[in-house]
Amino acid sequence: MSSTLPKFAFLDPQIDMAHGAGGKATRRLIDDLLGPLLYGTDAPLLPDSARLEIAGSQVLATSDSFVVKPLRFPGGSIGSLAVHGTVNDLAVSGARAQALLVNLVLEAGTETAVLAAELESLSEAARAAGVKIVGGDTKVVEKGKADRMYISTFGIGVPIPGLDPSPYRVRPGDRVLISGPVGDHGITILLARGDLDFEADLCSDSRSVLPLVEALAFVEVGVRWMRDPTRGGVATALNELAGDTGLGIVLRDDDIPLRDAVRSACELLGLDPLHIASEGQFLAVIAAEHAEAALGVLRRTPGGADSRIIGEVREQPSGTVLVANSYGSSRVVDMLVGDPLPRIC
Amino acid sequence: MSSTLPKFAFLDPQIDMAHGAGGKATRRLIDDLLGPLLYGTDAPLLPDSARLEIAGSQVLATSDSFVVKPLRFPGGSIGSLAVHGTVNDLAVSGARAQALLVNLVLEAGTETAVLAAELESLSEAARAAGVKIVGGDTKVVEKGKADRMYISTFGIGVPIPGLDPSPYRVRPGDRVLISGPVGDHGITILLARGDLDFEADLCSDSRSVLPLVEALAFVEVGVRWMRDPTRGGVATALNELAGDTGLGIVLRDDDIPLRDAVRSACELLGLDPLHIASEGQFLAVIAAEHAEAALGVLRRTPGGADSRIIGEVREQPSGTVLVANSYGSSRVVDMLVGDPLPRIC
Repeated sequence: MSSTLPKFAFLDPQIDMAHGAGGKATRRLIDDLLGPLLYGTDAPLLPDSARLEIAGSQVLATSDSFVVKPLRFPGGSIGSLAVHGTVNDLAVSGARAQALLVNLVLEAGTETAVLAAELESLSEAARAAGVKIVGGDTKVVEKGKADRMYISTFGIGVPIPGLDPSPYRVRPGDRVLISGPVGDHGITILLARGDLDFEADLCSDSRSVLPLVEALAFVEVGVRWMRDPTRGGVATALNELAGDTGLGIVLRDDDIPLRDAVRSACELLGLDPLHIASEGQFLAVIAAEHAEAALGVLRRTPGGADSRIIGEVREQPSGTVLVANSYGSSRVVDMLVGDPLPRIC
Repeated sequence: MSSTLPKFAFLDPQIDMAHGAGGKATRRLIDDLLGPLLYGTDAPLLPDSARLEIAGSQVLATSDSFVVKPLRFPGGSIGSLAVHGTVNDLAVSGARAQALLVNLVLEAGTETAVLAAELESLSEAARAAGVKIVGGDTKVVEKGKADRMYISTFGIGVPIPGLDPSPYRVRPGDRVLISGPVGDHGITILLARGDLDFEADLCSDSRSVLPLVEALAFVEVGVRWMRDPTRGGVATALNELAGDTGLGIVLRDDDIPLRDAVRSACELLGLDPLHIASEGQFLAVIAAEHAEAALGVLRRTPGGADSRIIGEVREQPSGTVLVANSYGSSRVVDMLVGDPLPRIC
């Protein structure tokens, strides 16, 4: 043991909030520490779900932890978010959630009413999303050793016929779609904390995107890739795609749907809306010849009226996400760096 | 909303440590709050795993959270414990773990070396148990909002041919077996905290019990029921069985395997060893005519040399666990009440 080489390339001496923000630091934590130590050399391309073959059947599994603060916010709460996050990770992996397991870590002293409200929120969201809660586990830690409650959800799903999204299927010329406005969830959480001298009529978009994904599958528009732009936002999700494929992604600034409240809050705070999390939208890459059909399907599906084609995939600039404005110039949008919005999910 | 009846019978105004201890308070939390709100009226009999039919195949799924303190202790650490706990929950449900997902909630400021050690411990335990870590999620909370790290693991497994354990299969006359000494894990954790003026040469028994369970399955001894006596110990696991079946369980005090260090620590602290958690043992109920054969199989399997038949199932006293001593008297052993040993897993 005296002179073994380090087994990982992660050099940060300790974990800080940025490692949980979903951006560059999270990617480094996964690529340089969790990957080599936990997943071995055959680490996956950070998929939202793991695809398993069990007893001859394809099963998709995903897991998420939720530490959102505050627990309740306009448009949702940690309970519903825990269901939507897991159902959506499966949906963008091309799977319909069948069963959820729910783990709770509770802080001693948490009021029963607060816990009961979140259990009801979990249950209601699961019923609405058509998924059954089949098990779980509960632990309690001392007062001051958690923040009322953390929830871990685990989802198991089955492949949706007609969908097999993968970064490897993405080709230059493909179009990039989004199912609705970006950043509603992240800015809602920030405002709900009351730290800002700024008010807005804004709700989290937290919801199941499964009906929209299933609508796309049904009409066979050839979905190449999907991702829900949660932590790190659209910019991080698309940078990961660009990095994984070596392709470039060019978005048109004017086409990115954005509510005024989100735009204003981002201007005030110096944040890029493309770094702000959504919890009820998804990105899809669709072959060019099917893009208008896909858009039509999404727009006709309840909850999809604000869908847009926001850009396209190109050969160049390799591994990069560009946003072009109407004046003919463009800017590079990188993954999220640092953590301007801690604990948004 | 003004005059609806309460939807649950849980009357404690807040959550306290006892609700996480695995005993009576945990059972009330599950039966009176989580059950009605989360699982609906068709709540399961607290099984260790959920049995799902996915695409025509039987799949078992289980989930656990780990908040053990300290993170490292003689014989194991939170990382290996997280693997063993989940593999064992599946094993005693009659399933072989195929895949694990691992969620981390990390406290900002946790040293990378501490995290890396647990990732290695997870990975090594998974390899030894023959299960693959296929995914997970990582969140970070502020300093003071967790205790370095909490781990949630989710396991998916497939049924082991020849095993279909269920409380419904237990009959009067069946024998109760245990795979080794009770309470090693719980007392090890207590001593590792250094709160006691007591030292002992004791290690956690944390390990995968899958090889022992598979050995039983292979010889077709007719396993009726299994459970790993973790939080709440042997007494709680058997009281749950007695409660679920309405049968009585009578243990013989002299036959319960117990290390001297565990006996001494329990005497010193006024604890019943039957309430102390094991993390590498399991209880099995076997038809009387197969009990000696089952014992022989366990004892010949590596890690099973200390297996014992410790008692039997009877018609009476209904719903009760009795321990009979060699002087002809017996005592009722109830589920764990309160939480003498917080955060042991």
